[in-house]
Amino acid sequence: MIILGFDPGIATLGYGVISVEKGHNPQVVDYGVVLTPKEQNLADRLTLLEKGIKQIIDKYKPQEIAIEELFFAKNVKTGIAVAHARGVILLTARRECEKIFEYTPLQIKQALTGYGRADKNQIQQMVKTLLKLTKIPKPDDAADALAVALAHAQTNKFSGLFKI
Amino acid sequence: MIILGFDPGIATLGYGVISVEKGHNPQVVDYGVVLTPKEQNLADRLTLLEKGIKQIIDKYKPQEIAIEELFFAKNVKTGIAVAHARGVILLTARRECEKIFEYTPLQIKQALTGYGRADKNQIQQMVKTLLKLTKIPKPDDAADALAVALAHAQTNKFSGLFKI
Repeated sequence: MIILGFDPGIATLGYGVISVEKGHNPQVVDYGVVLTPKEQNLADRLTLLEKGIKQIIDKYKPQEIAIEELFFAKNVKTGIAVAHARGVILLTARRECEKIFEYTPLQIKQALTGYGRADKNQIQQMVKTLLKLTKIPKPDDAADALAVALAHAQTNKFSGLFKI
Repeated sequence: MIILGFDPGIATLGYGVISVEKGHNPQVVDYGVVLTPKEQNLADRLTLLEKGIKQIIDKYKPQEIAIEELFFAKNVKTGIAVAHARGVILLTARRECEKIFEYTPLQIKQALTGYGRADKNQIQQMVKTLLKLTKIPKPDDAADALAVALAHAQTNKFSGLFKI
């Protein structure tokens, strides 16, 4: 089964694709980012995100898509911008794939390390270890997206939008 | 020229359609709301919004679309939810129409009343007066959407996404 993870963002949208088969370790398929230029207006940047998301889904045809939920506490202005992007991600993912799941940062940390207060580096180390990579995937947004996909693969406690 | 205004929301998206011809008062064409049920998940609600927006644009074929910007101060959680919807509105409007404009609540108040601190009732009275209606349009979200469309018609100080 192919699982696609998204780490939402307006300037940098991270994605991570993994393959999960029963009795095997999860395998990395691809990861990367969709970038949108700051100079462009918001509607055009959202259009670029939609295009990028669609290309990724068309290419890898994931059976399930996992999307990180927003963490509100940091910065309201950034949160509002990311939420615009997240609206487009949910809309586009829903159009292309029936099974969409949402995970909070806490759920991702717990799924990967069993510990809700794990730091960014611990999560990235777990991504590297679980996928048997030689180094931590870069950029961070791509590593985070792989973490979302792995969290979905690791847990049965789905906070999913859809019953499975 | 047909102008379409949107008052963004996830449960209730207001829209207002006006017709503006040189030397004439603006005329109301239609107004109303797109509703999404609370029981549905966010991705499905965003899909319903997209469908509703597309139907309105297909029906009235606006030359220009004006969308209210988010007012941050009220409630972060609500702001984040509305921003998801607003991402979908911008994306869908951009796909269907080349000329999209964004107005802050302050700009709308100033355009309609010449006064940035006008209250909701004053704005609604101005919508009624400018469009020569017998009563204030209901629900509020539809009246607010007409206010956005009128603000766009009234002002040349466009804060638009696109140069015109």
